[in-house]
Amino acid sequence: MVTEILKKVLFFKGLTLKEIRQILAIAHIKRYKAGELIFMKEDIGNHFFIVKSGRIKIFTSIGTEKRKTFAFLKKGDFFGEMSLLGGKVRSASALAVDEAELLVISKNNFKRLILENPDFTLKLLHTLVDRLNKSNKEVESMLFHNILGRLADTIIELTKDKHTSPLKMALDQNELAEYMGTTRVPVCRAINTLKKSGVIDYKRGELIVLNIKKLRSIAGTAL
Amino acid sequence: MVTEILKKVLFFKGLTLKEIRQILAIAHIKRYKAGELIFMKEDIGNHFFIVKSGRIKIFTSIGTEKRKTFAFLKKGDFFGEMSLLGGKVRSASALAVDEAELLVISKNNFKRLILENPDFTLKLLHTLVDRLNKSNKEVESMLFHNILGRLADTIIELTKDKHTSPLKMALDQNELAEYMGTTRVPVCRAINTLKKSGVIDYKRGELIVLNIKKLRSIAGTAL
Repeated sequence: MVTEILKKVLFFKGLTLKEIRQILAIAHIKRYKAGELIFMKEDIGNHFFIVKSGRIKIFTSIGTEKRKTFAFLKKGDFFGEMSLLGGKVRSASALAVDEAELLVISKNNFKRLILENPDFTLKLLHTLVDRLNKSNKEVESMLFHNILGRLADTIIELTKDKHTSPLKMALDQNELAEYMGTTRVPVCRAINTLKKSGVIDYKRGELIVLNIKKLRSIAGTAL
Repeated sequence: MVTEILKKVLFFKGLTLKEIRQILAIAHIKRYKAGELIFMKEDIGNHFFIVKSGRIKIFTSIGTEKRKTFAFLKKGDFFGEMSLLGGKVRSASALAVDEAELLVISKNNFKRLILENPDFTLKLLHTLVDRLNKSNKEVESMLFHNILGRLADTIIELTKDKHTSPLKMALDQNELAEYMGTTRVPVCRAINTLKKSGVIDYKRGELIVLNIKKLRSIAGTAL
């Protein structure tokens, strides 16, 4: 049983078998249906989550119109640490996009993990630094770039784990607009501009990067 | 000698005397003149810094016109951890605004500190979570608010450590514009709007919050 789960959770690279067992020993597994809310912004946060399967969306919204997706998380990613290490309430909402299984760890066990498991803590530190870097870059991108530059930034961010050549990804325009925190119309226009200039192709919900060098020069990463 | 320094560095709340001694034992002190650059964005980063005295500005710039201040750091704050825990190069620039003294810790000693000093690590985690929260809120603020809302957000952020009643702070309009990542003219206009509606007063470089409740309702924090 444990080894069967272990095989699936080998995502936790850099941790020893002993450390993975330590995490499993204090976690319980919870299943979520597609579309199910895991927690809402402003909820009191008492748990830390590791994604065992499925896709989780971390987002915020104001009213019913405006939404901003901060991240899509998948197997091996974790979330929920913010309110356990900071201001008690959830800083964003989390939703299971597909059917998902999560390893759930209580606040006390999470704190014990930090104190007793230095590799886990290092992984946590690295992830927070990555997320802070990404967030700061987004602030920069919004200040220094127009919608075209921000779209290019976003495409690079969303394809950074893909290794096909050419780069491809399934992409819904509404999802993309929410990721950028804007509406569909300007995103649709910007996609068409990138298509016309031969930087990307986009058809039937699939985006293909045709000229990564040019995409980078349009994005902030080349600055 | 050590105790004399210790008295000044009691900023490290939550750390035991033993832990503070451990940090001092591996740090050396470096002095910077007002206006001196500590490191530049894209530099290879090999050191971690704790502010012993003075004020440090963390910022980014594109070309010579656009600047964005991420933070002003003071006694007890630290910086430089990003490139030691992430992508090697500095993600922003750091400048001594006033004459400053910094405790400088090498990359190897910093990593040892994380592994051997859990309270230091917890402090690091809490700070990263605070900074990530702030950065995410700024993204939200930029997406969901106009310049007036962003100015209100910024004033609340910059006065959060002040405890005078009414809230007061010295404020340069150019500095404020850089903090918001914009230019002086729209900021100046927004300040005048807040002045006319009796929310703040601003004269001779000093900003006074007259109606904090209204300021919060204009800012994102009330949403």
